Amino acid sequence: MAAMTTNVNPDLQNERNKATFDPIQLTYLLHNGPQQTRRKRYIQSLALSDRVKQNFRTWTELSREERYEESMKKCIYCAERVKELGLKDPVDIYIYNQMLTGHENSPFGLHNSMFTDVLTQQGTEEQKAKWLPLAKNYQILGTYAQTEMGHGTFVRGLETTATYDPKTQEFVLNSPTLTSIKYWPGALGKTSNHCIVIAQLYTHGRCHGLQPFIVPLRNLDNYQPLPGVEVGDIGLKFGYDAVDNGYLRLSNIRIPRENMLMRHSKVTEDGVFVKPKNDKLLYGGMVMIRSFITGDCGRGLSQACTIAIRYSSVRHQTEVTPGKGEEKILDYQTQQYKLFPALSTALAYLFAGNAIREMYLRVMADINKGALGELPQLHALSSGLKACSSYAANEMIETCRMACGGHGYSQASGFPKIYVNVTPACTYEGENTVLLLQTARYLMKCLNSSLQGEELPNLVSYLNKPTGGRTSTISDRLSLQSLVEAFEHRAARLIKECGSRIQTLTSRGMKPDVALNSTSVQLVKAATAHVECCVVKIFVNEVEREDINPQLKPVLQAVCRLYTVYLLLQNSGEFMQDGFVTGQQVEILNRKLLDLLNEIRPNAVAIVDGFDIPDAMLESALGRFDGQVYEALYQYARNSKLNKTEVSDAYYKHLKPFLDRQRQISTPSVVTSRL
Amino acid sequence: MAAMTTNVNPDLQNERNKATFDPIQLTYLLHNGPQQTRRKRYIQSLALSDRVKQNFRTWTELSREERYEESMKKCIYCAERVKELGLKDPVDIYIYNQMLTGHENSPFGLHNSMFTDVLTQQGTEEQKAKWLPLAKNYQILGTYAQTEMGHGTFVRGLETTATYDPKTQEFVLNSPTLTSIKYWPGALGKTSNHCIVIAQLYTHGRCHGLQPFIVPLRNLDNYQPLPGVEVGDIGLKFGYDAVDNGYLRLSNIRIPRENMLMRHSKVTEDGVFVKPKNDKLLYGGMVMIRSFITGDCGRGLSQACTIAIRYSSVRHQTEVTPGKGEEKILDYQTQQYKLFPALSTALAYLFAGNAIREMYLRVMADINKGALGELPQLHALSSGLKACSSYAANEMIETCRMACGGHGYSQASGFPKIYVNVTPACTYEGENTVLLLQTARYLMKCLNSSLQGEELPNLVSYLNKPTGGRTSTISDRLSLQSLVEAFEHRAARLIKECGSRIQTLTSRGMKPDVALNSTSVQLVKAATAHVECCVVKIFVNEVEREDINPQLKPVLQAVCRLYTVYLLLQNSGEFMQDGFVTGQQVEILNRKLLDLLNEIRPNAVAIVDGFDIPDAMLESALGRFDGQVYEALYQYARNSKLNKTEVSDAYYKHLKPFLDRQRQISTPSVVTSRL
Repeated sequence: MAAMTTNVNPDLQNERNKATFDPIQLTYLLHNGPQQTRRKRYIQSLALSDRVKQNFRTWTELSREERYEESMKKCIYCAERVKELGLKDPVDIYIYNQMLTGHENSPFGLHNSMFTDVLTQQGTEEQKAKWLPLAKNYQILGTYAQTEMGHGTFVRGLETTATYDPKTQEFVLNSPTLTSIKYWPGALGKTSNHCIVIAQLYTHGRCHGLQPFIVPLRNLDNYQPLPGVEVGDIGLKFGYDAVDNGYLRLSNIRIPRENMLMRHSKVTEDGVFVKPKNDKLLYGGMVMIRSFITGDCGRGLSQACTIAIRYSSVRHQTEVTPGKGEEKILDYQTQQYKLFPALSTALAYLFAGNAIREMYLRVMADINKGALGELPQLHALSSGLKACSSYAANEMIETCRMACGGHGYSQASGFPKIYVNVTPACTYEGENTVLLLQTARYLMKCLNSSLQGEELPNLVSYLNKPTGGRTSTISDRLSLQSLVEAFEHRAARLIKECGSRIQTLTSRGMKPDVALNSTSVQLVKAATAHVECCVVKIFVNEVEREDINPQLKPVLQAVCRLYTVYLLLQNSGEFMQDGFVTGQQVEILNRKLLDLLNEIRPNAVAIVDGFDIPDAMLESALGRFDGQVYEALYQYARNSKLNKTEVSDAYYKHLKPFLDRQRQISTPSVVTSRL
Repeated sequence: MAAMTTNVNPDLQNERNKATFDPIQLTYLLHNGPQQTRRKRYIQSLALSDRVKQNFRTWTELSREERYEESMKKCIYCAERVKELGLKDPVDIYIYNQMLTGHENSPFGLHNSMFTDVLTQQGTEEQKAKWLPLAKNYQILGTYAQTEMGHGTFVRGLETTATYDPKTQEFVLNSPTLTSIKYWPGALGKTSNHCIVIAQLYTHGRCHGLQPFIVPLRNLDNYQPLPGVEVGDIGLKFGYDAVDNGYLRLSNIRIPRENMLMRHSKVTEDGVFVKPKNDKLLYGGMVMIRSFITGDCGRGLSQACTIAIRYSSVRHQTEVTPGKGEEKILDYQTQQYKLFPALSTALAYLFAGNAIREMYLRVMADINKGALGELPQLHALSSGLKACSSYAANEMIETCRMACGGHGYSQASGFPKIYVNVTPACTYEGENTVLLLQTARYLMKCLNSSLQGEELPNLVSYLNKPTGGRTSTISDRLSLQSLVEAFEHRAARLIKECGSRIQTLTSRGMKPDVALNSTSVQLVKAATAHVECCVVKIFVNEVEREDINPQLKPVLQAVCRLYTVYLLLQNSGEFMQDGFVTGQQVEILNRKLLDLLNEIRPNAVAIVDGFDIPDAMLESALGRFDGQVYEALYQYARNSKLNKTEVSDAYYKHLKPFLDRQRQISTPSVVTSRL
């Protein structure tokens, strides 16, 4: 259980009593079985007890600068403690760190991920032998600097230069323009002493495109920036207080030739550029990260759902029937309509995250055997999933927050922190719209293949089905197959319409690039339809698995139906436009949706319990496992830093002198302390 | 002009040069003509020069506690300066304060609004004579405490008690439960020394419902809480740092009988309760506030649009045609599809805000003459507009932010602050879903009247038109009338379907309240459809006015068309479900939408210029009038508090000892400062 307590709010206990399945079964399903679940819980309890012993300061009490400092303290503690505990498995380490830090992003985050990953993937054996031990033993601390002030998603536009000087066998790095200043890389501002800088490589007067270079930033003895390095924090953001996202301006920084990561491209001693054998391999890392973001978004949303659903089952408001007492707000249809689709979406992206990760591992294994065939399909799907999952989480976390009324707006609820941590996922690792357009471009290629009678990869094979003249088989039975068909039909129609529009425009003499831009709104819709169709299929496959616990299965199937029906109704016009789905069918679905809300209602709390998110990770007064929300809100208020004194400093400094002046102006006799 | 500068980014200057109208014409339209525009600008420039002279500290540099303190300083300065300047007109004072404080909410905000308003509206002449001068001269500082931990929107459920003691002729106030603790009232925590407390009145053992009581909170000489008063700040929220939203627990607080505001209800000396003559009058204040929120949401969204559109016309990203340079991101169709609907929505709610305010003033004037007829219609519309405007602003401010990529996530962009200030509008002054259900209940009453052949108020008279068998006249001409008709039809259909469903459910024996809850998802949709229909009509009326500048008129008409077409397409299923709008018509609209984006494109910057929001109010590196965004972002970063020293405190305290320990563990020879 997320927390054992003898003092559970009876409202919440009643919810748990009436559930038709054991939440642990869902936990097992989401966390790869009983053994891994036990391991997860064991590591979490270790981290939690360490966290309590270390007595870290409460996040809400701290200023931004203190948050950075406290988080530094935490990640240093983690680094040493993980070694002490002998944790080796990356999953164990991830769980330990995450539990210890709550959901703060840490100043060591990029060192442990991007910095070491890029070294591993793009360094030669020699380079890895030199740098990886340094990185893994924290003898250097690094980050990854790609984004510049003027360029983010359009990576080719980066302006930082690295010019090879054959005389000294060094690269000379420069930020030639204001817009070329690196901006945003995490932990760049104050934490890192090294950095992988992505720069345009010049040798013998020619540009050879972007390459990664290891650049030392700070003197390891006193941490002063090295000569020619202007580096600092970029100031307050929406969130991410604990991370020193930084800027970096380079002026004639010289680094040895060996500091260019040369596993793929090379520069010889005399400055000859040697091209990589296969460009596609470079995509691997990007695909991996985007795949992981999908699951992260599912997890962020599942946290928000946990908070909102538990709170809604202890919060009472409004007497519907006079004299019968105030209802639990979870019993209002409108509340269910906000929270259960969010719940179903969280599950959809948890499953999709698992599926894409498995697909990634399979495709990578194939690639290592030389088979690159599935890479385009994986790339397109991972881009699209990243976009759709982050948009959905972004929107629905806020829906969950607002469904908790005023208290949702307090940091005590935990929502604001979840939101500001998840929302950047819409932007980083490829801006969502740009990613959806990449997915769309892949779909356009598939469409052309299909028109030429070629075989299509399995995820887009629906493009080969005829679209004209067919109608949906959706009926009162609400078979999942009929819903999947509808999603395939909608995606196919939108993709084909994009294809015809582009063809029409180009046949009228428009350049292909311009025609693409003139179709981009529709292309985004088509890509979204494709991705949603894939998510629906993944979800359906998951809930039809033979090995699911028989009590859990019907519950998950209801949630899957809700996800599908809700998504269809949110976009019903797209399903109806060519008459595939009829008005009558939409009416059926509207009715079924309400039935599904009722069907899910008794298990809502059990489902979020099944996410198995400990209180210490939620850090929410509203989402507590024991449901004692009002006591927690009251304690939260009392702990406000402004309450350290009964009378605030602002009173003595400003308010008292002002009130004194006002008394002197007016008749003094009127105001007395007796008022 | 928002700001005069000699160094405007040429990209932005080009945008301004190609506009087909003078932005000042839009400014006049939105600000009631040239004279009021000049007045507004004059007051703004006064405030701005004061602000510069006073040298207030930058918001992003401050901790939460410092934000509270700095804001206190600002509002004290405002209070005294406004007197010194002799400003009397509430609009002048509002503009001055707003410009001086940026968009921070201030610790005096509730004193100057709710506290004095409630005194004015609910105090007797005697009470007003006593308390208003004290309040207006800041001899007391007050706030308004209604919301409790356990009750927000369901006001009747409040638990605080005020029991009359005829022996001493006093009320005794108590917080009888944990959930009855007042929670959320602004400026309650540390600022206010008085408070209007809403409590359940008990006299002679009977409860007479909620009444307002003036309760002193703090000793005026030393600001210590008075005996029996436990009061404090509620801690960090999503935003609103400058306001000390507070909690309040009352234990046997005695106040004189005269401290109950008795304009409406009364308690005599011997404890007899006297009912008010007319309950409806109590709604006036609520209607007013909700009306104002509509305009505020329009203004918040117009700020976000100003930032996003100016930035998008100086930001270049991605070469569409190789060799032709990177495009302005505003030239991407997908970017226009995000920003121009937001722009049109901002204008829609600015106009709707003006319209509902005028309606409010007219209805109030009628009420003072004894005519209450229009009050229900006004109440229903103001509730619905508040909900729809805040939802729309909430969603689209975030769309604008994310459309600016990574930089949107920096506080330098100004977006996060706008968002956290606007989003509470979805919750306060009546939670949006609850308000839409109130609107829906009114619509159900109108439907019944219509079925009984009664005449309907003008805004709902479309319910009398037949719905069956009709089809839309939408065509390539895109007449506004055909679009209005479609919105009327959709609203009428949804309202009528709710009516039938409720009738079916009750005829099967379901209790009316339960039937309403079982229909509430559809009722919310019906209410939204009604409100959107009203907004479309207001917008259409506005752009068809005879007296609009002839250059401006076609521009506004295009924006109005876009608003309407976009909104229709977002909900196309609802328009198509009964066949009123056909798939072919939706196809036309999809095409027209893209044409409208093109049509608006050349005037986008001019339109946001026309909002006339000074740089000092936007406080955005991205939204600057001069478009020098990169210089501003660079300066913003350099000013980060973490950059006060080259090497951070966290290094000396935590990182250095850690790195030293790591060096000792590994071979010392490997790591040198030369690395």
